[in-house]
Amino acid sequence: MKIEAVDLFYLAMPEITDEADGSQDALLVRVAAGGLVGWGECEAAPLPSIAAFVCPKSHGVCRPVGESVLGQSLETPADIARIAALVAYRSMDLLQAPHTFSGIEMACWDLLGRKLGEPVWRLLGYDRALAKTPYASLLFGDTPQETLERARAALHDGFSAAKFGWGPIGLAGVQADADHFAAAREGLGPDAYLMVDVGQVFGEDLEAAAARLKPLDEAGALWLEEPFHAGALEAYAALAARRSRVRIAGGEAAHNVHMAAHLLSYGDIGFVQIDCGRIGGIGPAKIVADMAVARGVTYVNHTFTSHLALSASMQPFAGLAQSRICEYPAAPKALARAITANHIVPDGSGEISAPDAPGLGMVIDPELVKPYLVDTEIRLGGEILYRTPAF
Amino acid sequence: MKIEAVDLFYLAMPEITDEADGSQDALLVRVAAGGLVGWGECEAAPLPSIAAFVCPKSHGVCRPVGESVLGQSLETPADIARIAALVAYRSMDLLQAPHTFSGIEMACWDLLGRKLGEPVWRLLGYDRALAKTPYASLLFGDTPQETLERARAALHDGFSAAKFGWGPIGLAGVQADADHFAAAREGLGPDAYLMVDVGQVFGEDLEAAAARLKPLDEAGALWLEEPFHAGALEAYAALAARRSRVRIAGGEAAHNVHMAAHLLSYGDIGFVQIDCGRIGGIGPAKIVADMAVARGVTYVNHTFTSHLALSASMQPFAGLAQSRICEYPAAPKALARAITANHIVPDGSGEISAPDAPGLGMVIDPELVKPYLVDTEIRLGGEILYRTPAF
Repeated sequence: MKIEAVDLFYLAMPEITDEADGSQDALLVRVAAGGLVGWGECEAAPLPSIAAFVCPKSHGVCRPVGESVLGQSLETPADIARIAALVAYRSMDLLQAPHTFSGIEMACWDLLGRKLGEPVWRLLGYDRALAKTPYASLLFGDTPQETLERARAALHDGFSAAKFGWGPIGLAGVQADADHFAAAREGLGPDAYLMVDVGQVFGEDLEAAAARLKPLDEAGALWLEEPFHAGALEAYAALAARRSRVRIAGGEAAHNVHMAAHLLSYGDIGFVQIDCGRIGGIGPAKIVADMAVARGVTYVNHTFTSHLALSASMQPFAGLAQSRICEYPAAPKALARAITANHIVPDGSGEISAPDAPGLGMVIDPELVKPYLVDTEIRLGGEILYRTPAF
Repeated sequence: MKIEAVDLFYLAMPEITDEADGSQDALLVRVAAGGLVGWGECEAAPLPSIAAFVCPKSHGVCRPVGESVLGQSLETPADIARIAALVAYRSMDLLQAPHTFSGIEMACWDLLGRKLGEPVWRLLGYDRALAKTPYASLLFGDTPQETLERARAALHDGFSAAKFGWGPIGLAGVQADADHFAAAREGLGPDAYLMVDVGQVFGEDLEAAAARLKPLDEAGALWLEEPFHAGALEAYAALAARRSRVRIAGGEAAHNVHMAAHLLSYGDIGFVQIDCGRIGGIGPAKIVADMAVARGVTYVNHTFTSHLALSASMQPFAGLAQSRICEYPAAPKALARAITANHIVPDGSGEISAPDAPGLGMVIDPELVKPYLVDTEIRLGGEILYRTPAF
């Protein structure tokens, strides 16, 4: 079959806040081939990603993503890798291209899985999808009391793992942060996994990050996530060398396999977190998962959006026994819930698994999604280059 | 003064070819503050870069570039660095942002230099702008004979250095490539600098690239540029370890200082090539130039577009005596010539210097540029988000 159409749908909440909450908008992707459709989702900034799909070519290696996808043959996983290589080369100078292609690549896997009647994780070589411990991905409160309450609520909702991120951490001194870490631990009780994400707040300031290791250790945190700018590999390695029990985590910003590999080999991280909606999709994420296994580093998904993105993000490590925990968007905006009609819900033991169903196993219901559609139109020289397609 | 307006102009040739010729379109940037304007230029893909400036916010750290620039105070170089840091943090998840901001950053330097009556290189701390040897940046011909003729023409035009790139190199075997290298040397004569750019054609294939070292050495090539994917640092380092006289060059894809630093420290390159239209502008390029000096590596500009971009790209190493050669777009498309009314031309010795004039020293004449304007309009929810501004 040949890829006949790629449709991009810009979705957004009526109001977007300044929270570091990635579930407030989405770029949903539908790929059609051979009478079937597959669905995917790009992480972040729908409009630039649409532009990267439709823009006129700038030169031979700055071509729109669409040019390397439309009309391509899609029969096997190798075809997806071939299309990915084509995009990487022909859109070399188009920076946004990996984000755009990520959703398309997911949709190609979904479509191929539906055609072959196999879950994507089986196409990736796994025999079964193991149960994972979902961790509630939450934002720190404005006060330790708020953080405590959010942690209690997560525990009450059945989570045995939670990650707190962003909020005031790094902005008001070590003791203020320590109070938040302790509050999170208090709320979660002594047994739950606690992880902390500081969203690059320390830039490249090694000592500022290192000063948080002791309070994190005292709160029994499993990892400290993104202390630094994603490219500050020396700082990552130097922090890892401090040999705290707290491991360093990173990788969500990786928009190709090389960037993730650099965090492993030069940054010495202990957990590598990959967002399938950014790194170029499921195929490159699986390559990173294999690299992580080879290095004894734990692979984790990065997912803060819909359950379509969650299913995609679970595929690359579905069969990896050493990767037990799994990021789970616990309190997404209404839009992110509406993207899929079915959801990946914890079983009686509080665990989740990638769907055992063809493709990504998620159902998209246009009627649920339509209220969030942002009607978009791009014109060049008076002609329409892009217009929100019909669902 | 406060930044009152940032206007983005999409320019393009009537026809865009598949050549790796970056002078076929441009995103020209005008920044207005305190009754003055400054000009800059973003490298590659105008439409996604416009979208990254105007798009609605996705969340707290995926904001449009415009939100971090408009209304900001601009009095000193430190203000430009402050705005750059704001963009880097608040547009963390917007991949295209560094390309968009690069042109804005240049325009801020141009504006500040005009206000202070100083060339940008003086604001960067250089006492004077040293003469550089421009190298003609050319594409390999389809045949060795064509390459030979292009080399002869460059020599005839007064160039004592030329770089040949892309074309058929890497596609037809070592001997075919060797014939092109020898033809380039024959056309340039024995004394001119010869450099070779293969545009990442070897992916990560170390041996394929290594097989070209001997013929490159025999042709007396100074460097081999971008043999691999920009992120394949291990391959860069392994090729450098082969200890050919030919040095390895790279860096044009760097969209932040970290990426350039990684090529230096992990990739062991001998020449670092920075495109001010991609790395975030002149400020980060100067940081890389300082790093290069500290490591004994030669800094070179990457410029394949207009003389506005050329002036900007010369500023970060204007005063560095150890950086003698300078990329010079020798055969740009008509659009790239039209962007500036004045041009940086070789003196009697065939050398060029960054303009000794306020700002970037280049004159933009709307009448020259207007024929290339691409009328662009972006609408969201029926409302105009962007429309090509008046010149």
